[in-house]
Amino acid sequence: TFSRGMQTVTIIPGDGIGPEISTSVIKIFEAAKVPIQWEERNVTAIKGPGGKWMIPPEAKESMDKSKIGLKGPLKTPIAAGHPSMNLLLRKTFDLYANVRPCVSIEGYKTPYTDVDLVTIRENTEGEYSGIEHVIVDGVVQSIKLITEEASRRIAEYAFEYARNNQRNSVTAVHKANIMRMSDGLFLRKCREVAENFKDVKFTEMYLDTVCLNMVQDPTQFDVLVMPNLYGDILSDLCAGLIGGLGVTPSGNIGANGVAIFESVHGTAPDIAGMDLANPTALLLSAVMMLRHMGLHGHAKKIETACFDTIRDKKVLTKDLGGNSKCSEFTAEICRRVQDLD
Amino acid sequence: TFSRGMQTVTIIPGDGIGPEISTSVIKIFEAAKVPIQWEERNVTAIKGPGGKWMIPPEAKESMDKSKIGLKGPLKTPIAAGHPSMNLLLRKTFDLYANVRPCVSIEGYKTPYTDVDLVTIRENTEGEYSGIEHVIVDGVVQSIKLITEEASRRIAEYAFEYARNNQRNSVTAVHKANIMRMSDGLFLRKCREVAENFKDVKFTEMYLDTVCLNMVQDPTQFDVLVMPNLYGDILSDLCAGLIGGLGVTPSGNIGANGVAIFESVHGTAPDIAGMDLANPTALLLSAVMMLRHMGLHGHAKKIETACFDTIRDKKVLTKDLGGNSKCSEFTAEICRRVQDLD
Ligand SMILES: CC(C)[C@H](C(=O)O)[C@@H](O)C(=O)O
Ligand SMILES: CC(C)[C@H](C(=O)O)[C@@H](O)C(=O)O
Repeated sequence: TFSRGMQTVTIIPGDGIGPEISTSVIKIFEAAKVPIQWEERNVTAIKGPGGKWMIPPEAKESMDKSKIGLKGPLKTPIAAGHPSMNLLLRKTFDLYANVRPCVSIEGYKTPYTDVDLVTIRENTEGEYSGIEHVIVDGVVQSIKLITEEASRRIAEYAFEYARNNQRNSVTAVHKANIMRMSDGLFLRKCREVAENFKDVKFTEMYLDTVCLNMVQDPTQFDVLVMPNLYGDILSDLCAGLIGGLGVTPSGNIGANGVAIFESVHGTAPDIAGMDLANPTALLLSAVMMLRHMGLHGHAKKIETACFDTIRDKKVLTKDLGGNSKCSEFTAEICRRVQDLD
Repeated sequence: TFSRGMQTVTIIPGDGIGPEISTSVIKIFEAAKVPIQWEERNVTAIKGPGGKWMIPPEAKESMDKSKIGLKGPLKTPIAAGHPSMNLLLRKTFDLYANVRPCVSIEGYKTPYTDVDLVTIRENTEGEYSGIEHVIVDGVVQSIKLITEEASRRIAEYAFEYARNNQRNSVTAVHKANIMRMSDGLFLRKCREVAENFKDVKFTEMYLDTVCLNMVQDPTQFDVLVMPNLYGDILSDLCAGLIGGLGVTPSGNIGANGVAIFESVHGTAPDIAGMDLANPTALLLSAVMMLRHMGLHGHAKKIETACFDTIRDKKVLTKDLGGNSKCSEFTAEICRRVQDLD
């Protein structure tokens, strides 16, 4: 896996606890001798020509070149009309698939064990189209936009993902009983794509039924694919099953190998700069990134060191039930990474 | 509570296991000497003048007179263009609020204890508007319709409900960060109504955050109010927390006291007619109905007999973990109802 030489990765530390947890990941990558070099960029949007919000050119250029980003939490400035930074990034790089593996972590107790599923969310359209109107005073409509192209693309991504990750089944999540045309189109594309992946089992389930079954027995699910809003909901629900956003990785995948991996928790301004943050979500996102880059050996080593540290329970940050600082937790993972050599 | 004399309630036994569980409820009501008389009706839609689907006039008239219905599960016939029976009923009687109390049942083990919350779902508009278009080939839109009037009405219902049921807080569930105009309007109305209910705490939370928090600690929630689709999702999720649709009651409330109470599970055709069905969801819906009618004494007695039977674990239907028939479970509840006299 070293044959690819040094690759550049754009790192976007982000706000609040972002810099601390980014530093933690960088240290652990150093300990694991991951053959990448970081290019640090700030993505906070600026007003471009014509008053349009855009990410700064240096950040855009870095990502265009490196194609891979790792991103901490961002706060969206409260300036009037400022778009959500997360949405702007998805849009700027056409990151059409949001991928969130939710896997139970040994030693980190929740009401569920053996969760092992992946939500794959269409990330560009649906309820997030941004098209809304006032029809008459007191009557408002929001438009959910579903296209054949985006539906096929995400369905294909989900089936490819299942095949490439030794997963057996894909479930399309929908409300085509209610939104017959839009969710109907989404579902039809999933069915069509399923025809080309006979090695992967395909099922369909109403979103409400998925939610009900999910909290009763999440182990019945494998890969789930769905429109934008349903993915927003289900990915957070599933994160909750395994311990919350502090331990859940996330990847946003675009065309031609472009991808941004990110922790999806907040900036936690109350503990920012106090060396108390938990870097696990960003670290596991970075592990996803390594797999995306084909660096499977490094990914495995870092993941093992992280999970061993959590299972061992001796050096944990507060939110994980321990008393250690972010830097101590980081050092412990580094130590274990080196021991694995 | 007997002073009101005999009231008529329209009973819609429904399909599959519907007749069995309806018979069970009728028997238990007899044992509890509930002062109501039943008027049985079939609501399966017929094609009216102009080809419009409608519920049969005898059913409509009965409901118009009695104002109160109790309904088992309905299958939606597969005839072309046939509307969902549930949606048709909501529409016919303008049942604008769907109310689902989710309360942990002692002795029925799930990963959660002490759940005690109520979801209140706007039942008439939102994502269920039924307005959809093909824009061009492969591009479809569904319209989510939010009105000031329906939003205010459901918010008022939620706060009244909280006040009348000794509940302390109402949480508005929304995605106004994404659907700024539609969910924004909904949220604004909730805030306005909250001003008139200073005795009830008001909070707002994103739907995804609610889902995450719900599976981590549902005891933090009390009354939740939300647009149609979010209610569809959250009410099923919450049902899952306490044991599923087999034990979750539901009420659909309209203007001027009109209401239909229903079990929201399916028709279970595989066990229909075999005396194996679990009548709990319909029975607890009937208990909600009694409270709605002001028959609090009877409600309490039946509810206690039902919960005692479940806690006791000796006479339970299969899905509840026992070996008894529906009729045996029913007889046990009747016995306990009479003992409580
Ligand atoms: C921050 C917000 C715009 C975003 C969303 O709604 O998609 C978040 O909840 C997420 O899941 O990334
Ligand atoms: C049957 C279906 C139309 C319905 C819905 O989506 O509202 C059901 O899921 C419900 O919650 O009552």
